[in-house]
Amino acid sequence: MDRTENTRAAVEKYWASADARDWDAFGALLAEDVVYELPQTRERISGKEKYVQFNREYPGDWRAWTHRIVAEEDGAVSWAKFEVAGESSDAVTFFEVDTDGRITTVTDFWPESYEPPAGREHLVEQY
Amino acid sequence: MDRTENTRAAVEKYWASADARDWDAFGALLAEDVVYELPQTRERISGKEKYVQFNREYPGDWRAWTHRIVAEEDGAVSWAKFEVAGESSDAVTFFEVDTDGRITTVTDFWPESYEPPAGREHLVEQY
Repeated sequence: MDRTENTRAAVEKYWASADARDWDAFGALLAEDVVYELPQTRERISGKEKYVQFNREYPGDWRAWTHRIVAEEDGAVSWAKFEVAGESSDAVTFFEVDTDGRITTVTDFWPESYEPPAGREHLVEQY
Repeated sequence: MDRTENTRAAVEKYWASADARDWDAFGALLAEDVVYELPQTRERISGKEKYVQFNREYPGDWRAWTHRIVAEEDGAVSWAKFEVAGESSDAVTFFEVDTDGRITTVTDFWPESYEPPAGREHLVEQY
């Protein structure tokens, strides 16, 4: 596999191992000094141990799976679907990987539904 | 340029021409049957003419610029910064392009700030 395909595979495994609660497999994808950031809350978690713990402790009987991945050699973005208690949401995540293919940064966005603004009904349809 | 670099350049021009209100350049990047979707509001706009109009009519004295782009041959994702009235926000946008390099789909996410949930203070720092 070339580096781009390795990066894509790492992102696929990231979500599959999280969904399976396979924290050994999940941790094996991460660099020791991985940094996780959530720009919406300005929260940061530093280091593999804490980041695995954060995911292991994340509450709820959630399921997650990848909807779309765009990958380059050094990084990728996933659009994942996340489902808990019958509610579905989207997660968009930017990843950076080192030359060994280990994930060094994870930046998550969790966009929430909102009401369409008025004034553009002449252009849009609802789906 | 190879197709991946063409795709990356199209996304760069997309944001640069929007920021410059250069709607001819913006429209030239789009396929005639481009489809725009906003999953958070479940709004859809179909066709280049309406989609250019939507952007042209978008209210506010906003500025936009790319912060990060991840590109493949057939598509890309941008993380853009959007600023209006001194307020900064993030836009994450998935693009698909056809074999001519024209943009066929644009899917936008506008994640908003929210308060950090309680119960993870032992793992996170604020930035």
